[in-house]
Amino acid sequence: MDCIPCFLRQALEAASMSVNDRQMRERTLKEVLSYLLHEDWSKSTAEVCTNVHRIVKRVLGVRDPYRKLKEELNRAASRLYPSLRRLVENSEDPFLTAVKVAIAGNAIDLGPKIDVDIESEVKNILNRDFVMEEPDKLKALALKYKRVLYLADNAGETFFDRVLIEELVARGVKVTYAVKGGPVLNDATFEDAKASGITGLANVISTGTDCIGLLLKECSKDFLEEFEGSPLVISKGQGNYESLSEIKDKRIFFLLKVKCRLVGEDLGVELGTPVLKHSFNK
Amino acid sequence: MDCIPCFLRQALEAASMSVNDRQMRERTLKEVLSYLLHEDWSKSTAEVCTNVHRIVKRVLGVRDPYRKLKEELNRAASRLYPSLRRLVENSEDPFLTAVKVAIAGNAIDLGPKIDVDIESEVKNILNRDFVMEEPDKLKALALKYKRVLYLADNAGETFFDRVLIEELVARGVKVTYAVKGGPVLNDATFEDAKASGITGLANVISTGTDCIGLLLKECSKDFLEEFEGSPLVISKGQGNYESLSEIKDKRIFFLLKVKCRLVGEDLGVELGTPVLKHSFNK
Repeated sequence: MDCIPCFLRQALEAASMSVNDRQMRERTLKEVLSYLLHEDWSKSTAEVCTNVHRIVKRVLGVRDPYRKLKEELNRAASRLYPSLRRLVENSEDPFLTAVKVAIAGNAIDLGPKIDVDIESEVKNILNRDFVMEEPDKLKALALKYKRVLYLADNAGETFFDRVLIEELVARGVKVTYAVKGGPVLNDATFEDAKASGITGLANVISTGTDCIGLLLKECSKDFLEEFEGSPLVISKGQGNYESLSEIKDKRIFFLLKVKCRLVGEDLGVELGTPVLKHSFNK
Repeated sequence: MDCIPCFLRQALEAASMSVNDRQMRERTLKEVLSYLLHEDWSKSTAEVCTNVHRIVKRVLGVRDPYRKLKEELNRAASRLYPSLRRLVENSEDPFLTAVKVAIAGNAIDLGPKIDVDIESEVKNILNRDFVMEEPDKLKALALKYKRVLYLADNAGETFFDRVLIEELVARGVKVTYAVKGGPVLNDATFEDAKASGITGLANVISTGTDCIGLLLKECSKDFLEEFEGSPLVISKGQGNYESLSEIKDKRIFFLLKVKCRLVGEDLGVELGTPVLKHSFNK
């Protein structure tokens, strides 16, 4: 229920990015209002939000309303990438710094608020106090199992993920990077993984669906096999957190920036906090 | 159309402040969704927003969902009042400073975002660059006509208005202070004017309606006579600005903090800017 104003804002933003026609935008918003009015509000946020974006895409007749913006995000993030790499290489604890960089990349998100000024966002967040739960354990488990399933969140953010993936790969860890199976919001799809050079480092797979977060009942069989078989999962962003936080599975480490009051309350941290959360300790 | 996510957020906030019952909140939000779905979106923001709040009050069965919060705002602002007075008394140009204080008071608003940390908001805004159009003319016209109609905005803000009203009264200007005729959002009503001591300084009247901003077709005859007969009008806040900015009436000076992107675009200033705008120059 608390997410409804946000869903409508997202629908409005997606429509405004895609079409200039006022009537078309109005029709989109009215269809979303009608859907929300008749939907069962006890369904998960991810499911309702996914349906909202499916309505937007259908009514507008646009496959990927966020494509242009995602390309901008990729370009902005690719310009930052060399300085992120240097930051990690020059740090005392490269792995820990790479984890922080990956979390900082989660500042890139259009769900809660449109903002392509990535550079200042990232500088801001790297100067903040991180709430990090067992970063050493994450490293130890990665080195122990030599295998990680890495759940992507947004386009652009993929360049920040690449920094952490490089640190993992350099330590002999095999990474499987899971992107969305189709366009939804500004979430990363295969082309964003490719744009950020991850296809050369990791095995890139998709969830098999255009769902926000991870709606397991809609994921492909291949993805579910990978998910169930992975001894360690790095989960990026609020969408994946909201989908998986109920499971309490000690294989999962959540890396995210808290962008919404409700998620902040759930995690017990302030809005804007960069967080590493080990699911088992929830 | 762009205001719809905001209307829903306000409805949700008002419901959350008033009742703990989840079903009641859901019913409120669904009635608002249904109203918005079937409303004519070419109506003014003030009219649709007013209707949203009327639905909230009716469904919740609460006359004034914001009463407790308005009392908090009044308490916080009353504690600040002595320092605002001193600021004006110790300044080189007390009238101009009082105008700035009155604008800074408009930082208090729950429409765009709940925030009762008035003190830091006010300090922040007084340190910002004001966009002031003809403040000397406002003063000259007040001294010329010796009469001002002052349109109030929010509870708490009334203490900041008092500072400017005192400067006007000290210069022999007769002030009529118009509050809302009934509770809507955190807008000031008669009891807020009284709580801030304005009843002893100015003639306090009401708009005769519980409308957001100033919906002239719903105002009382008494108010309309005062409005039409006033040679000078000080209009506080976005709600009044949105209602009156179309009129282009050189009697009106708008004092507001820009809290919404759309109003900022209309005024050609950044979000958050404190503004004095002379209607004639629009």
